Amino acid sequence: MRIALAQINPIVGDLPGNVQKIMDTIWEAAQNQSELVVFSELVLCGYPPMDLLDNPLFIDACTAAIQQIARESPPNIAVILGTPVRNPESTGKRLYNAAVLLDKGQVAATAYKVLLPTYDVFDEYRYFEPADVCTPIVWRGIRLGLHVCEDMWNNEAWAQFHLYDRNPIDELAAAGTDIFINISGSPYSHSQSQTRDRLILENCREHQRPFLYVNQVGANTEIIFDGDSCAFDAAGNMILELPRFREALAYLEFDSQTRQLTPMHPETAHTSASDRIRDLHDALVLGIHDYFHKSGFFKKALIGLSGGIDSAVTCALAVNALGADRVTGVTMPSKYSSSGSVTDSEALAQATGIEFLNIPIVPAVSAFDKMLADVFAGHPPDVAEENIQARVRGTTLMALSNKFNHLLLTTGNKSEMAVGYCTLYGDMNGGLAVLSDVFKMDVYALASYINQKAGCEVIPESTIQKAPSAELRPGQKDQDSLPPYPVLDEILRRYIEEWQELETIADETGYPYDMVSAMLRKVDANEFKRKQAAPGLRVTRKAFGTGRRLPIVMRWDRRWASEMTGADQKDVQEAWE
Amino acid sequence: MRIALAQINPIVGDLPGNVQKIMDTIWEAAQNQSELVVFSELVLCGYPPMDLLDNPLFIDACTAAIQQIARESPPNIAVILGTPVRNPESTGKRLYNAAVLLDKGQVAATAYKVLLPTYDVFDEYRYFEPADVCTPIVWRGIRLGLHVCEDMWNNEAWAQFHLYDRNPIDELAAAGTDIFINISGSPYSHSQSQTRDRLILENCREHQRPFLYVNQVGANTEIIFDGDSCAFDAAGNMILELPRFREALAYLEFDSQTRQLTPMHPETAHTSASDRIRDLHDALVLGIHDYFHKSGFFKKALIGLSGGIDSAVTCALAVNALGADRVTGVTMPSKYSSSGSVTDSEALAQATGIEFLNIPIVPAVSAFDKMLADVFAGHPPDVAEENIQARVRGTTLMALSNKFNHLLLTTGNKSEMAVGYCTLYGDMNGGLAVLSDVFKMDVYALASYINQKAGCEVIPESTIQKAPSAELRPGQKDQDSLPPYPVLDEILRRYIEEWQELETIADETGYPYDMVSAMLRKVDANEFKRKQAAPGLRVTRKAFGTGRRLPIVMRWDRRWASEMTGADQKDVQEAWE
Repeated sequence: MRIALAQINPIVGDLPGNVQKIMDTIWEAAQNQSELVVFSELVLCGYPPMDLLDNPLFIDACTAAIQQIARESPPNIAVILGTPVRNPESTGKRLYNAAVLLDKGQVAATAYKVLLPTYDVFDEYRYFEPADVCTPIVWRGIRLGLHVCEDMWNNEAWAQFHLYDRNPIDELAAAGTDIFINISGSPYSHSQSQTRDRLILENCREHQRPFLYVNQVGANTEIIFDGDSCAFDAAGNMILELPRFREALAYLEFDSQTRQLTPMHPETAHTSASDRIRDLHDALVLGIHDYFHKSGFFKKALIGLSGGIDSAVTCALAVNALGADRVTGVTMPSKYSSSGSVTDSEALAQATGIEFLNIPIVPAVSAFDKMLADVFAGHPPDVAEENIQARVRGTTLMALSNKFNHLLLTTGNKSEMAVGYCTLYGDMNGGLAVLSDVFKMDVYALASYINQKAGCEVIPESTIQKAPSAELRPGQKDQDSLPPYPVLDEILRRYIEEWQELETIADETGYPYDMVSAMLRKVDANEFKRKQAAPGLRVTRKAFGTGRRLPIVMRWDRRWASEMTGADQKDVQEAWE
Repeated sequence: MRIALAQINPIVGDLPGNVQKIMDTIWEAAQNQSELVVFSELVLCGYPPMDLLDNPLFIDACTAAIQQIARESPPNIAVILGTPVRNPESTGKRLYNAAVLLDKGQVAATAYKVLLPTYDVFDEYRYFEPADVCTPIVWRGIRLGLHVCEDMWNNEAWAQFHLYDRNPIDELAAAGTDIFINISGSPYSHSQSQTRDRLILENCREHQRPFLYVNQVGANTEIIFDGDSCAFDAAGNMILELPRFREALAYLEFDSQTRQLTPMHPETAHTSASDRIRDLHDALVLGIHDYFHKSGFFKKALIGLSGGIDSAVTCALAVNALGADRVTGVTMPSKYSSSGSVTDSEALAQATGIEFLNIPIVPAVSAFDKMLADVFAGHPPDVAEENIQARVRGTTLMALSNKFNHLLLTTGNKSEMAVGYCTLYGDMNGGLAVLSDVFKMDVYALASYINQKAGCEVIPESTIQKAPSAELRPGQKDQDSLPPYPVLDEILRRYIEEWQELETIADETGYPYDMVSAMLRKVDANEFKRKQAAPGLRVTRKAFGTGRRLPIVMRWDRRWASEMTGADQKDVQEAWE
């Protein structure tokens, strides 16, 4: 029998739109003689629906939509798709995260998610009751090991720390499964894709069964789904891989007697190998594209161009996502701006073909200086005056955004956001923070990739070569107050993404203890800024935003750990490594 | 034997400070001949510690601190307190939310939390493994029914919907309990306190056992804990109630033979009855006080005074929290400001005795008008120009904040925040949103209470009487674009706090369907603004902030529900009521 894997891009909450897209896909799969088409987790409402799930009317509408899809599907094809389903019991959370099997005009079977990720960006136990029962669904004589996303992730041979005491894959296998089918809403991060493939391979090998994996594609606010759906044979060979970062519909033949699984078009069964920077580029482009188009009310994207690398890369990504005719760049020179800040921005605008505005901020900055002259008298210039410039630029951009219905893109990178090298209500203004999960050195790598891909100097070489500077006071350079970015990024990655602590980082990198300590303190102290930051595109396994929740008012200080344990802090570290 | 209930105010992450406070309290209780002193949930690290719990070094420090407290406590007193404890198993979440019993220099027993709240502001399953076992702890011949917060909340006679399939109170009672001891980190909201008392009463009556309840007091960023610890006898009579919104240490005598529980000072055993507006006032004052003092690096609070009710009430609350010498008010008139905006602000400053600044914003607004004249040519004035004024004020306030190390308090109320009647990077600027969970009509009620309490016109009568206006264009009034606030507040309360939907609200209130619909759409459409709002003090059961998580990019539209269900929307509503 023919099975279709449907990797589609739903919009959160857009039930009519998602139903239409699902129906179109079902009809296409049916016309191509498929007997079964498989969609991703919560595809009906889009992932993540968040607290929309608390609205009973929303669940009613989902229930009605499922019935509509069942009713309007062609008779010869069955459909598997993800949707929230009410928990009929009087105890427990009110919903299940379900995979439903639609066949012959009705809901023929349902599999509820057992393992509910509740960490990082995931809040599933906030809404869903874990399933008690996990058994295969018998359909047309085939025992389908149907399960949802996290349910495949507790493989003992693979996970280092088992979050759960159940393994649904083992339960399905023990009950007798002919083929595993996993429907997922698994977000992109570079390491995630490889981990996922290894895990499916382990599950296939352990149980000697083929495996279908269908993942959501597309971005919903912060979270980017890469798709990358795939099929493995019973020996653990990947026989089909759908493209990353775009919709796709692919077909396999499944022999229920031999459990042989074969891709329909073996010559196109494999997408190109993963490349970290290219994938990062494609993820960010998708993130911008989907934020813009799914929001549905912006005319253009707007970017403040400083002549620096961050705004240049943000601009080039926006052009790749939306087209040059949908991007406006604005240079806003002050008296501290280098001449390059304007000329490099102009060169970028010319190379990309975007609309370009030049609005000097001197008048407003001077006005603030006069307004505050009396109150500030006797106080030397400091960060207050620097921030006025950033906030005048932010206000200028927002005025353009308000007047012309433009989406303001924020350009700050993860390194800056980490240490608070950014101005609240200034350069942090915007609806979407494109690079807030991209370390500075990766911004440079993106610039190289963009130029290489274009085959010309989209991002001016002078922008790439100049020393990073906020240009808020004479001669200011980032490296006056921060270590070189390769060093800073390494420290930040270890701390933020690995939860490594001071001693470990200093020991393993050889960087000075005091400098590492100062950087970690900067990260801790700037939670208040990040709390008010624009949503940012998540591309690592630990981004600032909904997946990282630190208290703002708090006094944790790692220096106490050694005092309180009465031990050398190094010993404490070694104890938990 | 004598038992002390210790209602203290810990600072999140401040292990040395919290240990010191806990030790001081233990010594005081011991000097007063107590054999047992009971502290609140996670008192060692403060609630909520959030992702600090993911840092192994933090857990090491907590473990060391518990050992230190056990070691340094006087020999004759046992201590019960809350702390995170490592899960020794290789599966499951890495921590337990524990109540530990310290006795004779060591951890004598431990009770782990069974029911992990994972809704609203609570994310406990993100960090903690639920306990399998829930049994009484036998200590000096007494069977202590020790449990943590949520563990008492699944009473079948009380809860309308049971979130969990276990009831730890029943399990403890069945196993034989002489006295229940609940340690809590239960946040304040007006209805919460009464619900809590009813619940304890039900638990006492059902099992005929006395009940000790110790709750955290104090505010940590958004969340305010009211304390309100209490003791009930076996018949369900409240025999002791500790004060709300301040620290306290109270004593009871417990006869382990008769299970008789008696307060030591019956004449002061009861705090004054709850009053909604007084409690609201006290909660907000505590919230401001603790944000300011626990942060530890602000010199003063700073408030932009518009002459309106919101900024006036915020200012009066700040004065009550910090003292007049720690508050600065700034009036920033524009060409659209009424004369009252300055004179009423001046009157408020005089009545409260705060520092008062007058910084007209006309120069900066004019500068922006000139800077943008070319780009805006041919476009009539609209929200872009209005927002420039709000952002010039926001930038002025942030300049003062940066220069003088002031905490900028935001003054927007819940009604405005709900419908987006506020300017991002303008009047939304600030470190703490004092009124963001207070509906407009309650702001008026607070103003009356403040004046009545002071016995004089702290908040000018003209401020109370004037029609609300943002004064961003000539003759502008809030009610030009919004229904009267009593109407708006009622709609918003039903939608946000009760999850009532359009039909129900329109039916039950009699307000026009189209108007209600428009207001709900405003709430849905302004998620992007609230995403970047300052943290706000939570005083209702559903505040904007960490407890309400809606997607930003989404297309849910309630009008689809009736189309998709094929039914009249009214029927859908009735189905889930």
